[in-house]
This record gives sequence, structure tokens and C-alpha cells, in this order.
Amino acid sequence: MTEIPKSHPRYASLVARERVAEGVRKGLTSIQGLIAQGRGECFDYLLGERTTPSAAAATQAAAAMLLLAERPAFSVNGNVAALVPEEMVKLACALAAPLEVNLFHRSEERVKRIADLLRSCGAERVIGENPDATIEGLDHARALATRGGIYDADVVLIPLEDGDRCEALAAMGKKVIAIDLNPLSRTARRANVSIVDNILRAAPNLTAQVRQLSSLQRSDLEGIVRDYDNENVLHRAVQEIKGHLEGQFKD
Amino acid sequence: MTEIPKSHPRYASLVARERVAEGVRKGLTSIQGLIAQGRGECFDYLLGERTTPSAAAATQAAAAMLLLAERPAFSVNGNVAALVPEEMVKLACALAAPLEVNLFHRSEERVKRIADLLRSCGAERVIGENPDATIEGLDHARALATRGGIYDADVVLIPLEDGDRCEALAAMGKKVIAIDLNPLSRTARRANVSIVDNILRAAPNLTAQVRQLSSLQRSDLEGIVRDYDNENVLHRAVQEIKGHLEGQFKD
Repeated sequence: MTEIPKSHPRYASLVARERVAEGVRKGLTSIQGLIAQGRGECFDYLLGERTTPSAAAATQAAAAMLLLAERPAFSVNGNVAALVPEEMVKLACALAAPLEVNLFHRSEERVKRIADLLRSCGAERVIGENPDATIEGLDHARALATRGGIYDADVVLIPLEDGDRCEALAAMGKKVIAIDLNPLSRTARRANVSIVDNILRAAPNLTAQVRQLSSLQRSDLEGIVRDYDNENVLHRAVQEIKGHLEGQFKD
Repeated sequence: MTEIPKSHPRYASLVARERVAEGVRKGLTSIQGLIAQGRGECFDYLLGERTTPSAAAATQAAAAMLLLAERPAFSVNGNVAALVPEEMVKLACALAAPLEVNLFHRSEERVKRIADLLRSCGAERVIGENPDATIEGLDHARALATRGGIYDADVVLIPLEDGDRCEALAAMGKKVIAIDLNPLSRTARRANVSIVDNILRAAPNLTAQVRQLSSLQRSDLEGIVRDYDNENVLHRAVQEIKGHLEGQFKD
């Protein structure tokens, strides 16, 4: 991997780009994954490359929702595997949730490589290599799912996910938590909790929140979820982008 | 290429993404071109994925400027070659302008592949494989140009271009027309006409405008160019983004 000097002003974003490029070289991430990375970078830049107050609120609500879940499950795609494999494993272990490999551009080799990577990071339950169910409303290879994972889950965490899939899971009655830097995306709008933040920040923040909230009573966790307003959070994220653009052109 | 079902709500943007991914597989587009594509997607989202009124005004002024030109020339890079090779050829033919292959990350093989592709689309004059001039103020491989093309042109069309190169061409006294989805970029700010639109829409729109305006008198074309205010157009583009964001979430 190209060495990025820590002093480079764009260090964090260049490291992320290198991870995804390395993910492509290792056969974990699709070429299209690099495009998604570029899109995310742009939105992150507009957000100010930080966890905004609204994203922090979403992260807390997501943690509460996951702690309340009976059968939580996490989706992992090629970008997630390139960017934060270890953090996803830590989070999954903290909740005893399975990690399910789900790819928009599916190939069995790539599913296996990602599954192997997660296991090498210490994951206890990794599924997706032998799908035995299909999600209604999705085409073909994109509908594949695994019983005991996303298919049966009551709460699903779907970072960097396609809008169709988010819709389909929500239509099945599941509670959907998305991590998506674009507050205007179908995924962000359809999810129950949309964490509009860079997954490099959101994943460790979510793990920290899960640990912090794990001592709360169920009724308190339910209170957090009940008081949470995703529409308002997305509105605030959009205001944050507008504020950033405002500063670019002086009237 | 992965088949995108026509029913997918993001069909157009997914097709563009596939074209760029295919461009990489065919050795036309650099990997960095994928990140640039993603960044463009972000801005297109913010614009509402449509040709805005200000972009339409810029496209008209660009067409007038090209019709008035004595020696127009077009730059084609790896992303342009992946996305709109046929449209660029149609536009070049409509103006009897040469297509010059210019790459930020230059390799002779890639220049040749792009040149061959353009010729296979029916291009009459494709140059760039044998550069014989250098543009002042640019480093090395990025300064390479060809006499009879961009180097000698009075008006240059530079879609998806780097800010440094835009600056250098403007500094040579050329009239510069850019296509760039980011109204805040150095390229957009420095060009004489900045078409803030997706090249998938801008290229055919530009060709249509050239055909439509080709019957006008020179004095009328000069009037269009004289009345055009690029600073105002960029300002309007930013307002259009803010307006689009405003409309996304009702208070």
C-alpha cells in the first residue's frame, strides 16, 4: 500500500482511499466500490469530515435498538470489508450477532474472501457463503440471504447499502439501521435509523455506545428509541451540508 | 458488464457507474477515475440529477463560443472515453474539431486505446498519441499537447478536467469551456464557460445546441457570448443545490 505521510492534510481520507484500493487489489471490493468510496468522500467533505451532533444522536439510537433486539444481524459488503473489518467484528461480538456477507455484485469467490477475512479478524459467526433464502422484491443474486442471519433478524445493520435492499428489508418488517454519508439517498430515507457519518468513525462510535448503554434498563433503551426522530436527523444533516456550501460563496 | 435491471430506480446512475467500471476493465479509465466518478455522483445528487436552468444557459453560451471559434479543440480523458465516446465524436464532427486524448495519469497504452475507441466510433481527427508541444506551467507528462489540437486552439472544451490544466490553458489566452459537476472546483471557477452538469446530459445537449444555433448570424452568436456571465451561473448552480436540498425535507 502506498505510504501516506501522517502530516498530509488529507491523511484520513487518503488512508480510506488506499484501504478501498487495496480491497480491490485483494479481491474483496468491487471496482464499483471505488466509485461509492469517491461519492462518500465528497459527502464527508461537505459534512466537514466529523461526527455531527445529529449523527451522534443517530448512533446512540442505533446502539439502543441493537441492544433491545432479539435477533440482530449485520450485513458486510466489499467496501465495509476493506474499510473496517476489525471494527465490524468487535461490534458483532459485543452483540453476539452474526456477520452476513452480502454483495451487490455477487461472486462466490469474493464472498468467500470476505468471509475468510472476517474470520481471521476473530469473528465468531460469519455467514453468506451458503444462502438458503431469498428476500422478496429484489432481483436474483441480490435477493440471496441466509437463515439465521439477515433473513430472520428483527434488527439489521446495513452499512453502505443499496436503496433497493434497504427498502426490501424494511418491507419485511425489520428495523433497519443504515450507515450512509448521503442523507438524500433512498437508503437513508427509508431506514429507521440513518447514521450519516463516515463508517471509519461510525463503526467504533457504535461499538462504544453499545458498551456504554449496555447497563441501561430495557425501559430506558426503549425511551431512547421512542424519542428518536430519523426524519429530523436527516433534515439536520442536510442543514449541515447547506451550511458548508453557504461558506463557499459570499453574497 | 453486470446487468442492471431497467426497473431499478437508480438505473441511469448505475449505467454510468458500469460504463466507468468497464472503462477500467478495458484499460481506458484509471482507477483514480473511479473516485472522480463517485465524486461527480455526489454533486449530481445535490443538483437533483437534472440539467438546471443555469447549466442550460452555460450550454448555450458554450455552443455559441464553439461556433464562433476558428480553431476549436476537445480534450478527452479516461472518464470521458468511458462515459460518452460516441457523443464526443458527434460533437467534434458537428464542429470539425479534433479530439485530443489528454490523460492526468498518462500511459502510452491508455492513450492509444482511447484514440482507437474514438476512431472506432467514427471520429475523423484523433490526436494525442504523438505529442509535440508542452503547455507552460504544468508538470512533465501533464503538460504534453499536440500542435493542431489543444495547443493551437482558440477555444478548448475540457470536460472533467483538472484545475491545474484549466488554469494553464486559460493563462495561454484560450477560451476555456469546462464540464464539471462541482461549481466550487478550481476548474469551474477558472473556465470562461462552466457547464455544471453531468456529462451524460451535457454532451448531447451541447451537440443539440450547436446544431440549433448554427444558423444564427455571427453577431447574434457574439451577443450570446457577450451577455453570458459565468460567475453568475456558478452562483446560481450553488443556489440550485441549496434549493434542491431545501426541498428534500419539509419543515
